[in-house]
Amino acid sequence: MGQLSRLAGTVRPGGRTARVRAAVLEATQDELVEHGFHGLTMDQVAARAGVGKTTVYRRWGSRAGLVVDLMNELANQSMPHADTGGIEGDLRANALSVLGALTDGRLGATFQAVVAAATCDEQAAEALRAFHLRRLEEWVGVVDLAVKRGELPEGTHAAEMIRAISAPLYYRLVVTREPVTPAVAERSVVRTLAAARAGAFVEPVE
Amino acid sequence: MGQLSRLAGTVRPGGRTARVRAAVLEATQDELVEHGFHGLTMDQVAARAGVGKTTVYRRWGSRAGLVVDLMNELANQSMPHADTGGIEGDLRANALSVLGALTDGRLGATFQAVVAAATCDEQAAEALRAFHLRRLEEWVGVVDLAVKRGELPEGTHAAEMIRAISAPLYYRLVVTREPVTPAVAERSVVRTLAAARAGAFVEPVE
Repeated sequence: MGQLSRLAGTVRPGGRTARVRAAVLEATQDELVEHGFHGLTMDQVAARAGVGKTTVYRRWGSRAGLVVDLMNELANQSMPHADTGGIEGDLRANALSVLGALTDGRLGATFQAVVAAATCDEQAAEALRAFHLRRLEEWVGVVDLAVKRGELPEGTHAAEMIRAISAPLYYRLVVTREPVTPAVAERSVVRTLAAARAGAFVEPVE
Repeated sequence: MGQLSRLAGTVRPGGRTARVRAAVLEATQDELVEHGFHGLTMDQVAARAGVGKTTVYRRWGSRAGLVVDLMNELANQSMPHADTGGIEGDLRANALSVLGALTDGRLGATFQAVVAAATCDEQAAEALRAFHLRRLEEWVGVVDLAVKRGELPEGTHAAEMIRAISAPLYYRLVVTREPVTPAVAERSVVRTLAAARAGAFVEPVE
């Protein structure tokens, strides 16, 4: 798994400010998992975190602000990309990392809540976009290394390959609501790699 | 575009019952587009459709019931699959049909609202799943024909290929919130076809 399921104790240690942030983000995630974005309220988060309402309002401004900070924190906790020595192993590690996140009860529910939030809140949409761009940036290196090793054609578009690994998993999770299994992750690797080896990721990308 | 953007006048004609249904589904879609699933209320749909509240409650039961019926109607309105005589043209027609739906202001907003609904409502999730399975069933024939024509390897998994065409478009729309453009649709066709020609869609699927 590329990410830790629980924030508690993992937010960078520090003084009272850091502890308050950790408690508030943990409570935000709890509330998102249990009630979704539309059931998220600043007051409930404050109560659950054992923090004064005025503190939560002053530091996060809105429930979208809470989601933005939570997604930043989750992005910060992502592991660096794999380096198995070969592109197939690296892509498999990426696919399994995404699979692990989506099938983790708590993280999967968090992503689904933020996907729902993003359909109706521009700040949440921006947080989701930024989260995925961060994850993408972490993983493009495995494709660039593979091109240098001669495993993939010169000019292979790294970000597009990493997107292609994730797309079928998220598509099932939130769009067709079909099961997301290890077999789905493995097929994503095999197909993306076959297309890349055939040069289908080389064309210019806008 | 694979689907009509507006329901008005397109729901099968009939007596008063059919007219009431058409008006209620049109109002449901209007409300979803403007306020999302969480802003959808039975009373507001009844008022907008000019139909008595008791009728709406009796026939649809809940707002999830409205979404289920709307998705059924949208599935019924899908065009049959293309038959361009070649797999590349057929897949392109499929990709452009999905692109057209997602970038249509009204239909795109409807799908996003239902995706959001599905994250927190099992009936809405089932409606979304059923809608995509219907669309899938309509299009698998193009792959089977291509296998018969010798364009794709024997045993190519038709439904998986059609899923692979859609996945990158929906992934950008609802997950990474990146632009969904004709170039994205075209790349999806090129890559799916390259993987399929290399036999990457042949492995057994659970």
